[in-house]
Amino acid sequence: MTPSRHEITVGLIQKACTADRALNQASLDTAIRDCAAQGVELILLQELHDSLYFCQTEDTARFDLAESIPGPSSERLGRLAADLQVVIVASLFERRAPGLYHNTAVVLDSDGSLAGRYRKMHVPDDPGYYEKFYFTPGDLGFRPVETSLGKLGVLVCWDQWYPEAARLTALAGAEILLYPTAIGWNPADDTQEQQRQLDAWITIQRAHAVANGLPLIAANRVGFEADPSGQTQGAQFWGHSMICGPQGEILAQAGSQECLLTARIDRQRTEEVRRIWPFFRDRRIDAYGPLLKRYDEGC
Amino acid sequence: MTPSRHEITVGLIQKACTADRALNQASLDTAIRDCAAQGVELILLQELHDSLYFCQTEDTARFDLAESIPGPSSERLGRLAADLQVVIVASLFERRAPGLYHNTAVVLDSDGSLAGRYRKMHVPDDPGYYEKFYFTPGDLGFRPVETSLGKLGVLVCWDQWYPEAARLTALAGAEILLYPTAIGWNPADDTQEQQRQLDAWITIQRAHAVANGLPLIAANRVGFEADPSGQTQGAQFWGHSMICGPQGEILAQAGSQECLLTARIDRQRTEEVRRIWPFFRDRRIDAYGPLLKRYDEGC
Repeated sequence: MTPSRHEITVGLIQKACTADRALNQASLDTAIRDCAAQGVELILLQELHDSLYFCQTEDTARFDLAESIPGPSSERLGRLAADLQVVIVASLFERRAPGLYHNTAVVLDSDGSLAGRYRKMHVPDDPGYYEKFYFTPGDLGFRPVETSLGKLGVLVCWDQWYPEAARLTALAGAEILLYPTAIGWNPADDTQEQQRQLDAWITIQRAHAVANGLPLIAANRVGFEADPSGQTQGAQFWGHSMICGPQGEILAQAGSQECLLTARIDRQRTEEVRRIWPFFRDRRIDAYGPLLKRYDEGC
Repeated sequence: MTPSRHEITVGLIQKACTADRALNQASLDTAIRDCAAQGVELILLQELHDSLYFCQTEDTARFDLAESIPGPSSERLGRLAADLQVVIVASLFERRAPGLYHNTAVVLDSDGSLAGRYRKMHVPDDPGYYEKFYFTPGDLGFRPVETSLGKLGVLVCWDQWYPEAARLTALAGAEILLYPTAIGWNPADDTQEQQRQLDAWITIQRAHAVANGLPLIAANRVGFEADPSGQTQGAQFWGHSMICGPQGEILAQAGSQECLLTARIDRQRTEEVRRIWPFFRDRRIDAYGPLLKRYDEGC
């Protein structure tokens, strides 16, 4: 990026997945090409983008889905990025070593190179979201990835509930926050609870944009996925992927159907917002010590 | 509060102020009595509740508005709290010593005692909001105040843009977050900018509720106040005070007119939300160190 380029076109792909991984990949590759054809320069894919959300059960066979990085997926996506001259942010199941796996996002730069990776730092564990079984919490910290489009602040799903994650990424120089996500409704919940959860999810991500004066992109999957164990009623992934500006204003938002979502992000606007709302200026770092505590009993 | 009492009725007073402080006080006292008559047990007043928002200019004469704590205002409000058997959270201009002033919130318990105080930790300075001239940043940290209604997490205005403030207060055991506020539109901004600012303000406070699984009450003033210096076009305080639940769901929200706003807060619901969304469980305190840095250059 030359300094004079204020605007970039960003996009995301909101998809349903099937049990056929090759089919999912082919469909996503087509969607990536469609995005690029629309002028999108930065493309975000959803969490664990090319498989069913396998964490609904704890099943050692699912470790077969993992791959090394670099590996087949990062190389395939890298070729696609170079071919289309776009930056792609994708979420992979990383096999780091035997018995050691992470939920990892990779950034493929527009020359096809692996610009960097982020290993999901906050790992959930809830009925139907048994991620602690599969993923060791990340050990790379909150470091944005330097690319030809600037510093990308990549985080993953459960991180999106943590203001700390967004703040640390912003303090490390991120220019855009990106969240590949897989989150859905429990069909056993009533519609009021489902609406509160969706609203909370949208609200807290918009708030990360506000608090840090940064645009934000979140890509979620859609579709119903049954629970293979039959323990729960499965997951209805709620979509509603979004792109918002540095005041948390919604620039584009999806519904619950498959779609490509695009928006123009204006870096000059980010600069202006950070001047009128200079939140970084007044942080009370002298009094933030207890943020490093598990709980603050006051002793 | 006995442990079996799950619900409490909370309320706030959204008012315009005049240059006549005694008149403002009389009007607020009536509103507090009205609140109590409606069964409200916890009443939040707006920031610097009984005067014009004097920080529009830097004027040494305005230090005359400050008073000691305990002092006339905390004592008057304490008597009112005891008389009505309610808890009152009020925002005062504290004169701590000659040349040393704070923007301080006081908590008057239902027996009239001064249960505690909070000194605004994040102090803004923007055209029309020259608070750094008047207020020394707080030195009491982020400690909730123990009352007969539980631990109240009192913060003030500009703090509301800082996820750190809400988190620290929650980690220290707060059961409700409370924000006395004075924020408004610059009439020179266009309506789109004004709407973005209001939305951002609502969004980030709802997000503090979500991130910490806590109900939240924010009281803002209303009315137009001219800038005595004539430098700006004055401030149109935007109201929109609100009460939300622990998923950030709006329980009650005001418009831009004077009003009393009330809602029932269900502590049992707070407990449930903190079980289904156990965000405290997964905080990566091992990796949060750079939150204590001004900026993270990575070295």
